[in-house]
Amino acid sequence: MSQEFDILVIGAGPGGYIAAIRAAQLGFKVACAEGNAYDDPKGDPRLGGTCLNVGCIPSKALLASSEEFENIGHHLGSHGITVKDLAIDVSKMVGRKNDIVTKMTGGIAYLFKKNKITLLKGYAAFKAKEGDRYQVEITGKDAGLVSAKQVIIATGSKARHLPGITVDNKLICDNEGGLQFDQTPKKLGVIGAGVIGLELGSVWRRLGADVTILEAMPTFLGACDTGVANEAKKLFTKQGLKFNLGVKIESVVAGKNNVKISYADDQGNAQSLVVDRLIVSVGRVPNTENLNLEAIGLKTDERGFIPVDDHTCATAAAGVYAVGDVIRGPMLAHKAEDEGVLVAEIIAGQKPHIDYNCIPWVIYTSPEIAWVGKTEQQLKAEGRAYKPGQFPFAANGRALGMGASDGFVKVLADANTDEILGVHIVASAASDLIAEAVVAMEFKAAAEDIARVCHPHPSLSEVMREAALAATDNRALNF
Amino acid sequence: MSQEFDILVIGAGPGGYIAAIRAAQLGFKVACAEGNAYDDPKGDPRLGGTCLNVGCIPSKALLASSEEFENIGHHLGSHGITVKDLAIDVSKMVGRKNDIVTKMTGGIAYLFKKNKITLLKGYAAFKAKEGDRYQVEITGKDAGLVSAKQVIIATGSKARHLPGITVDNKLICDNEGGLQFDQTPKKLGVIGAGVIGLELGSVWRRLGADVTILEAMPTFLGACDTGVANEAKKLFTKQGLKFNLGVKIESVVAGKNNVKISYADDQGNAQSLVVDRLIVSVGRVPNTENLNLEAIGLKTDERGFIPVDDHTCATAAAGVYAVGDVIRGPMLAHKAEDEGVLVAEIIAGQKPHIDYNCIPWVIYTSPEIAWVGKTEQQLKAEGRAYKPGQFPFAANGRALGMGASDGFVKVLADANTDEILGVHIVASAASDLIAEAVVAMEFKAAAEDIARVCHPHPSLSEVMREAALAATDNRALNF
Repeated sequence: MSQEFDILVIGAGPGGYIAAIRAAQLGFKVACAEGNAYDDPKGDPRLGGTCLNVGCIPSKALLASSEEFENIGHHLGSHGITVKDLAIDVSKMVGRKNDIVTKMTGGIAYLFKKNKITLLKGYAAFKAKEGDRYQVEITGKDAGLVSAKQVIIATGSKARHLPGITVDNKLICDNEGGLQFDQTPKKLGVIGAGVIGLELGSVWRRLGADVTILEAMPTFLGACDTGVANEAKKLFTKQGLKFNLGVKIESVVAGKNNVKISYADDQGNAQSLVVDRLIVSVGRVPNTENLNLEAIGLKTDERGFIPVDDHTCATAAAGVYAVGDVIRGPMLAHKAEDEGVLVAEIIAGQKPHIDYNCIPWVIYTSPEIAWVGKTEQQLKAEGRAYKPGQFPFAANGRALGMGASDGFVKVLADANTDEILGVHIVASAASDLIAEAVVAMEFKAAAEDIARVCHPHPSLSEVMREAALAATDNRALNF
Repeated sequence: MSQEFDILVIGAGPGGYIAAIRAAQLGFKVACAEGNAYDDPKGDPRLGGTCLNVGCIPSKALLASSEEFENIGHHLGSHGITVKDLAIDVSKMVGRKNDIVTKMTGGIAYLFKKNKITLLKGYAAFKAKEGDRYQVEITGKDAGLVSAKQVIIATGSKARHLPGITVDNKLICDNEGGLQFDQTPKKLGVIGAGVIGLELGSVWRRLGADVTILEAMPTFLGACDTGVANEAKKLFTKQGLKFNLGVKIESVVAGKNNVKISYADDQGNAQSLVVDRLIVSVGRVPNTENLNLEAIGLKTDERGFIPVDDHTCATAAAGVYAVGDVIRGPMLAHKAEDEGVLVAEIIAGQKPHIDYNCIPWVIYTSPEIAWVGKTEQQLKAEGRAYKPGQFPFAANGRALGMGASDGFVKVLADANTDEILGVHIVASAASDLIAEAVVAMEFKAAAEDIARVCHPHPSLSEVMREAALAATDNRALNF
């Protein structure tokens, strides 16, 4: 006799654990299965998925530490502050990161108890549908059969590896190894100038590594607004990151203590790079291969994603939903979370909605990059008439005081209605400044609406207002 | 023959210079008179008023420098970062502050030129009304008579001094002297636990001063939400600031190198305090005594403020307006700026509006304090049914990563409609996080609206969402 639940959530990452909590809040009997990808010393799964264990949270901890280090080494002179013998104990820095992860994963375990969610320790695979219930096999500490009327698949994604390049997470690393170096490499190679490559590349550069980033695409951060991408590339290059775009990787050979990458540059000339460590960050693939989807008549698309409909995350199997990195849309933790909430509420009979155009994006470099809505190049491609308004942090008193005057806010508004179509930020606090823009877009605000909202002086948020004034009718007050 | 303008703005602080720029944008012929309170070495006025010269901007520069110093001295151990011989050259720190002020004041001079605003160097006083024009006498470098159809009074405020206590800005200082110490005082006294006292007290405490703050009121930060004030007092006390509330200052006597303050404590017991420097920060008074308002039939109220109506900033004299610190409402730079824009637009025949309930407040301590709308105690006094929702930064992954886990966001929503009535933040980035709340309140958002807006993960702004979820129906997901 199997354990019976109303809802089984497979995966305890941001999509899964949030779906489980929201479902429990709504009165369902909920189980959440989590495999042993990130076991604790007792062999129990650490909850939170990639994001919490080897993604968003640990990388932010290392970014903060490395930013402190760089700041002390390079940016305190103007304050009149002097120090000697600046040093960093990398293992202690990594230990701090691990402590934060442990605290946060423990927090989710507490939330599961508080919300009476049954944690099933083990991997889940569909077995069959019997009547109106799905039978699911758990493999691991809590091995056995469970059944549920609804199943939410939230198994997330893993780093994509390149054919023929073995990731050992010692010399050749993906995101997991790149968070765990025992010392700062002298020379670090990164394949892939995406979010993860830029973030981890930045961490180790700040700590002293000579970092070269190889990218197959000819353009830098193609998903970003072009103006933002250009500004970011200029700033990152000034910081010391070396970019080679449009390259074709020919081979990667691990030696005893180094790695040799042979590639063709954007002119087709043969090049090689020898580094102490290599991070491969060329995208992520969904974790769907072990779910035995066929048992319930589902199959993934050719890239491994589970097809779902546009607005309810429903799969072709009645009562089975999928959220987060295993379905269409950006691989972002907060997108997964919102889908988790949405599915729980749909199962409860509510009518929630996600406007995917209002999901913000963030890259945690320094300065950070954040945006929501359409880029200039998207609007041009759509043939939509728009008005851009841009304002630099260099003209903002708070930014000058903080020593954070790099970057700008760009507001794109409809040329006819003034509705905000996109907001693009390069700034030290972009990840927080973007929240105002998302709220504004959810309310279909005009640029002039934001321009007329009182923003505290002095604050970085004034730059948003000035950019909105510039978009409204080119009437920035302080530029 | 006097110089003739459409609009004369008196004062080039945030209210005045912004009014002048907006009026110029709208096509008026504009002059702006600025006295020599903050002269540059050539004897020309530095624009920007108190805010830019001796207020918001320089204090933020010193707060940033002192925060770096404290951070290095006390908060880097967990990152594994070590330094030796941490030191600060106070004169260099003050020099950096002065450079930022010079850059910003120069920026306004540039904006005046760009917008073809005539700068009148000198103090302005009304002489008479002749026909539909006001005759105004300028005293200073640009001495002479000017006339204008409309006049906007934006002369700001100055530190209130206590009777019998002479501020020399060496031993006994107001905000001006408190920004210019040549070294860190060993013992610093502060009279007044308001915004300026807390900010300047924090600067010098971080640099090593033993700071005691004396406050006449029995409650701490009475204008703040009580929960926020209590949290802030706990945190500031832990940082080392010493507070004595409910005191009555008996005498302040300056010696050769120190200052003795005699006061009665909250029990009525006689106490005394000897300090190296004293900052008196007991509020500010409007600069209205030299405007010769009587010449045009105006007079100030008993506290020196110029009476204006509720929504247009019009005085009793047709065509004369007053904005910022010289009128009713909070003495906040951004409130002055918004009134400056409003008056310029009213003169142009537009129908602008300011919702004073949606003007945010910020105190730039560490953590910062920011709020908008009503406090819990105000709602209770009004008898309004409300729902509070609160979420701590200690449960936010980004805050943990940044080492900024102190504080919380509290959202207060109407118990019946769920409309957001107030948002109160204690947090490292409160000054920027509040912008989202102001936009939401301007759109009459419900707490659930914010709860349903996608916030980037990980970011501090997620705490806003969780507090909104808590207010909606106690359904925070991560607590």
